[in-house]
Amino acid sequence: MAAGASGDKDLAPAQRLAAMLGPDMVLTGEAVLPYCRDWHGDVQSDAIAVLRPRDTAEVQACVRAAVALDLQIVPQGGNTGLVLGALPDQPARQVVVTLERMSRIRCLDPDNFSAVVEAGAVLEQVKEAVAAVGLYFPLTLGAQGSCQIGGNVSTNAGGVNVLRYGMTRELVLGLEVVLPDGQLFDGLSQLRKDNSGLDLKQLFIGAEGTLGIVTAVSIKLLPAPEKVATALVALSRLEDAIELYRRARRDCCDLMSAFEFMPPLAIDLAREAMPDLPIPLEATYPAYALIEISGSGLVDIDDLMHRFLEAAFESGLAVDGVVAQSQAQARNLWAIREGMNLGQAQRGRHLRTDVSVPLSRLADFVAEAEAAVTARMPGCICVSYGHVGDGNVHLNVLPDFAQGPAGIDAQILTAKKIVNEVLDRYSGSISAEHGIGRLKKADLDMRLPAVKRQLLALVKNALDPKMTMNPGCQVDL
Amino acid sequence: MAAGASGDKDLAPAQRLAAMLGPDMVLTGEAVLPYCRDWHGDVQSDAIAVLRPRDTAEVQACVRAAVALDLQIVPQGGNTGLVLGALPDQPARQVVVTLERMSRIRCLDPDNFSAVVEAGAVLEQVKEAVAAVGLYFPLTLGAQGSCQIGGNVSTNAGGVNVLRYGMTRELVLGLEVVLPDGQLFDGLSQLRKDNSGLDLKQLFIGAEGTLGIVTAVSIKLLPAPEKVATALVALSRLEDAIELYRRARRDCCDLMSAFEFMPPLAIDLAREAMPDLPIPLEATYPAYALIEISGSGLVDIDDLMHRFLEAAFESGLAVDGVVAQSQAQARNLWAIREGMNLGQAQRGRHLRTDVSVPLSRLADFVAEAEAAVTARMPGCICVSYGHVGDGNVHLNVLPDFAQGPAGIDAQILTAKKIVNEVLDRYSGSISAEHGIGRLKKADLDMRLPAVKRQLLALVKNALDPKMTMNPGCQVDL
Repeated sequence: MAAGASGDKDLAPAQRLAAMLGPDMVLTGEAVLPYCRDWHGDVQSDAIAVLRPRDTAEVQACVRAAVALDLQIVPQGGNTGLVLGALPDQPARQVVVTLERMSRIRCLDPDNFSAVVEAGAVLEQVKEAVAAVGLYFPLTLGAQGSCQIGGNVSTNAGGVNVLRYGMTRELVLGLEVVLPDGQLFDGLSQLRKDNSGLDLKQLFIGAEGTLGIVTAVSIKLLPAPEKVATALVALSRLEDAIELYRRARRDCCDLMSAFEFMPPLAIDLAREAMPDLPIPLEATYPAYALIEISGSGLVDIDDLMHRFLEAAFESGLAVDGVVAQSQAQARNLWAIREGMNLGQAQRGRHLRTDVSVPLSRLADFVAEAEAAVTARMPGCICVSYGHVGDGNVHLNVLPDFAQGPAGIDAQILTAKKIVNEVLDRYSGSISAEHGIGRLKKADLDMRLPAVKRQLLALVKNALDPKMTMNPGCQVDL
Repeated sequence: MAAGASGDKDLAPAQRLAAMLGPDMVLTGEAVLPYCRDWHGDVQSDAIAVLRPRDTAEVQACVRAAVALDLQIVPQGGNTGLVLGALPDQPARQVVVTLERMSRIRCLDPDNFSAVVEAGAVLEQVKEAVAAVGLYFPLTLGAQGSCQIGGNVSTNAGGVNVLRYGMTRELVLGLEVVLPDGQLFDGLSQLRKDNSGLDLKQLFIGAEGTLGIVTAVSIKLLPAPEKVATALVALSRLEDAIELYRRARRDCCDLMSAFEFMPPLAIDLAREAMPDLPIPLEATYPAYALIEISGSGLVDIDDLMHRFLEAAFESGLAVDGVVAQSQAQARNLWAIREGMNLGQAQRGRHLRTDVSVPLSRLADFVAEAEAAVTARMPGCICVSYGHVGDGNVHLNVLPDFAQGPAGIDAQILTAKKIVNEVLDRYSGSISAEHGIGRLKKADLDMRLPAVKRQLLALVKNALDPKMTMNPGCQVDL
């Protein structure tokens, strides 16, 4: 997916789109380029046009116009995805439909713990709007200041709170979707229980826009967690983090909202990215866990955290640690987690993975995969961290940067192959939360059993026989 | 769906099935009748044969044999469904495939909080097996001593713990399904996070066997709730129950596992069904809530319940109440809930509904629907109870039994129409948790928007073009 020069474009379809939809709805030329660049800035693509509908009827009009012109549609939310799912791969045939102008909160029903929001609403704005009425939308991820709720649904986004609240799928009560032929699927129920036959909305969650364009979402809300306790705990090894997680599951009931594992290098990487960041632990340890317990009402969350940690120290699992004494301190602890990502990015191009294995095999998997990578390429550094409670680890590999661009690319490719080979032996997933998009399509493809491929093709052909919606994403069928 | 006399059957297909599959796998004649009778005993149907595979390969063989003979398949679990989803409606063309001989626990991985169980495993046995290793499978419903996990998945079963743990859908990690052409979909992942494209297993959850036969299920487990506090609280009205529920959501964080509403008649009905049942409250009140808070580890559940109830009494919401002091007392409180159902059944044929509305409109809905029923038919008695926290109410109607069988039938039909008319104005669901099956097909049909019907037909035709799997269930397409 190299950059196509803008001049290469056949202008006729763009002009026809503008005539059909009105010029205000159609971006062309240089204006499309920002929509055709990925979040990391690794890839710059192009498109015939970017269509910017303002409401559901306009989305339908966009789809019908594209179909009439035999164009393909790449739906796009905040364009913060990590797998190139929202980026055109055939610029001469594709238009981007951005939902950015559809960002209203259509309905907020605190007494039903629910809201209906348009697909283009930015996640953080949704969280703030529901917080204003004392409620909570638990989806929490790094990109929340930019990502949009429709993209969250289409990618079934995960994040740091999955262990307590589930993936986006579990937070969706209903969907409104414009289908590949422009018809509207109106499934915007706000019912918490509705078991009246096949649950069609499930098809569109995680489909990455291949079956339609999500235009609005009915979401579950929860009481706001009034009290949050955050701790950074130092441990002797990854196995101890997993054991500590298991204890936390039991000791803290369902009140643990995050349990992130970080390796010692995390601290260095965070320091590199944020030199002024206070690091509350003086010594360096083999492993860290960032733990959050939260709740509302009558449960004493601080006391729960203290008693949990007390037992962890007594048993020898925890060797050092600190509990945030203020919201600012809690933010600083989370900043280490985020700084670790920034620090990796600053070092240069590297392998980012997003894999999962059964929790019971996580420590073995990480040890084996890291050993396999460094045995083959001693100059590489593995940085394994993630949402341990879900069995989801980002086993990243920093190449030997001294080897130059071609060497770096080769190392990244080799490291990916090694990690995935070990992963296959552990029956793991190559995409725990980021999705497939176009980046991981080949890796999915070689692992796709025949029956599953056949089912995917049957569903795609049934709903999108003209292959209008995001072809080239997830699977070539 | 009247009973077909056994002698009417064309024996040839049954004999051919026995020849193809071996006589041990094929029941015919009188032996099929128990499999063709519904849970309430209201309906007795018939079938060409009942096929009893012992493993997944035999299920595949059954499906292929049925397809070869141009027969239709009605998959059946514990046959405890309430909507005739597992009962043949064309006895001369249909075979029942029962999963009762596939009841193994294939794998139990406590360290991954997961298990893989075969479809025919009885829910209670699954719960006991995981409890034996200190874990918990939260699905809890009246039929758990008979219902099977495959049926739970196929009907997306609900139950009393949905408000905390979700419907069955949210407890499923993976599925193994025999498809309508006999091929095997092997999706038995035990990963807690796997976001690698379209989630095909969602299609089969709640499909009531119309897209394939679920043969095994990978399930999520949780730490066992070591401490359970159960209380029966008397209230002045339904609105207060809903307000109390909202407070409980906040005050008890995510530790409330059940919140059942019952009307005053509940006590009388329970007494009728179980004369020896101790009723712990001396007076009669306009409304009752049965509340359960549970957890493990470091949270003091009893203290939480007491402080929650203390505040409820102080605010005047709770007017009387009792907290179970032992497991036996807790069981007695739940027995009131179950006795209420038995008592209704003992009085005679009556309207059972399973509707849901937004929680914010539940009290209005119940008041309006009950008033509409009794205004039209003053001799009827409404019994509205249910899982208030999910907006799910069983608004049942006991007819005027003095009017004789024909009058009773007419009243039930009229009451259903009245309730559903009010329900439609509240954008409610005619099936919050029981499914559609054959019993509610006509009611779903008249409410099905054209686009949704079209999508259902597309999916059904794509996966089951010969209409082999449970035709006549959910929707006629």
